[in-house]
Amino acid sequence: MEAKAVKIRGKGDVDVLEIGTHEVREPGPGEVLVQVSTAGLNRADLLQRAGYYPAPQGTPSDIPGLEYSGHVAAIGDEVQGLAVGDPVMGIVGGGAMASHLVVHASEIVPVPPNLSIDEAGAIPEVFLTAYDALFMQAQLSLGQLVLIHAAGSGIGSAAIQLARSAGAIPVGTARSQAKLDRCKDLGLAHGLCVTDKTFAKALPALTAGRLPNVILDTVGAAYLAENIKALAPQGILVVIGLLGGASGDLPLGLLLAKRARIQGTVLRSRSLAEKATLVQAFTRDVIPLLARGQLVPVIDRVLPVEDIREAHTYLASNQSFGKVLIKF
Amino acid sequence: MEAKAVKIRGKGDVDVLEIGTHEVREPGPGEVLVQVSTAGLNRADLLQRAGYYPAPQGTPSDIPGLEYSGHVAAIGDEVQGLAVGDPVMGIVGGGAMASHLVVHASEIVPVPPNLSIDEAGAIPEVFLTAYDALFMQAQLSLGQLVLIHAAGSGIGSAAIQLARSAGAIPVGTARSQAKLDRCKDLGLAHGLCVTDKTFAKALPALTAGRLPNVILDTVGAAYLAENIKALAPQGILVVIGLLGGASGDLPLGLLLAKRARIQGTVLRSRSLAEKATLVQAFTRDVIPLLARGQLVPVIDRVLPVEDIREAHTYLASNQSFGKVLIKF
Repeated sequence: MEAKAVKIRGKGDVDVLEIGTHEVREPGPGEVLVQVSTAGLNRADLLQRAGYYPAPQGTPSDIPGLEYSGHVAAIGDEVQGLAVGDPVMGIVGGGAMASHLVVHASEIVPVPPNLSIDEAGAIPEVFLTAYDALFMQAQLSLGQLVLIHAAGSGIGSAAIQLARSAGAIPVGTARSQAKLDRCKDLGLAHGLCVTDKTFAKALPALTAGRLPNVILDTVGAAYLAENIKALAPQGILVVIGLLGGASGDLPLGLLLAKRARIQGTVLRSRSLAEKATLVQAFTRDVIPLLARGQLVPVIDRVLPVEDIREAHTYLASNQSFGKVLIKF
Repeated sequence: MEAKAVKIRGKGDVDVLEIGTHEVREPGPGEVLVQVSTAGLNRADLLQRAGYYPAPQGTPSDIPGLEYSGHVAAIGDEVQGLAVGDPVMGIVGGGAMASHLVVHASEIVPVPPNLSIDEAGAIPEVFLTAYDALFMQAQLSLGQLVLIHAAGSGIGSAAIQLARSAGAIPVGTARSQAKLDRCKDLGLAHGLCVTDKTFAKALPALTAGRLPNVILDTVGAAYLAENIKALAPQGILVVIGLLGGASGDLPLGLLLAKRARIQGTVLRSRSLAEKATLVQAFTRDVIPLLARGQLVPVIDRVLPVEDIREAHTYLASNQSFGKVLIKF
């Protein structure tokens, strides 16, 4: 069948984005066809558009989109526990910016009944990423201090809430005080407005001298040395993004003295089996908290797919708080 | 009582090393007085002599030495399971280059009966360090490939044997082919002679394309980017030394793409409780393998304490294979 899709024509600025059509195949064994309701916009989409982040093998090279919410429209053989019409959400390697999408059933997360299908669109990428980084990678636990950079981003707002739910103490940085103030409503204990890329020195005054046991970082190179300086002994720096550069100076002497760890991680390149394992743990551990409203999706705005260029420009402007969703 | 000790007078070249005396106190509660037989020489001693590695609090600032073997000479209150005359060994924060040494009983490792007291002197620092790095930090396990830099060093020769005992496959680098040939006798599967600080490209040809799941590194900055290049997906780089510099460029993009980990670690600065935990695990897991000869201490030479300056010069020359021990 023919789906409506965001297409990247070449690489460059937002003008390479167009609305086009895309032939979607029937779902094969173990697969499901989803009629997409909303697709969350991610910085990876912006990078892919600019030519810096090619789609992984097995995903359409010219259709961006790493996550979706929608309804099951058709079911392939050997799929159990799903029916046409079920509200679903999930992450994919690419191609989610389309009205219809074939996904593997094991990658699907059920939408809790208390959430609308549009609200659900704000969940998959940020909550799965934050859950994986904080708990699977860094084993964040009760009473620990966690520093969350870009606290007002989609991942930041999910991480703050997840950290609180685990009894950890989330502190955050952002480039605007207004964003930090909004983060307080989500459970942020302390916010630090960072304008000159330094925070290690100012942090202890906020936390009564405590240093972060875990740092969740989307900045990369520009914050690398500061992160190691800020970290508590035996702390863990989880790097999940490189918005501040992909190569930076690492103070190894300090890393050894603190017996600290740096963990790099990404979701997109994982195998289907690994994603299925994560989705299973997430459905068990996090969906119940979303279902009873202890965790809430944070949506900045929902824009029609026809406004995809405006959506890219808006996300790039760093003004958003929470997710920007594209409506199909 | 008065002990004979190596003293560092000021900081600088080997001529700041002298043989002097040192007043040793009685062992307090939980402590033991050891009559030292041999003390292993470590690069940390050379760094301390040069003024780059001050002794931690609670250890004599002017007496180097991180490890010893010897016999129990006196026992403080509240010490159980040790008797005067027992052969013992262990690591300490400093001050081991002395004829007598007060240590805490929980830091003591028993010497297996098959080993002479001088042979035992080659065990503590290198086997504890390699055991902690490979198993406590990196969870090295059956079938994994482990890359060991400076394979002919004391730590290297211990790591090769420990990796083999765990069913892992040790590959190693060294700056001389002769050292690599000797490492083969200890169980090294493949050796790579590295003369220009690069190894990532040449390694897969040796290992039929397999990449290291774990890298044990004592070089630091000079090997940092190469180590990340060489590492397998989800691999772990454990950095335990900085002989090649303390600050280097980290390719974060590659770290994320590989979902790799960098773990910094040191033994010296650990608390008594942490050392006691390590010593307990080591005594349980490794001492039985030493006791039945599956692991062997590797000794380059034993020099009398009067030759301490020559010993420093020799270790710095990179000619040694295995441990250089100082005899008291």
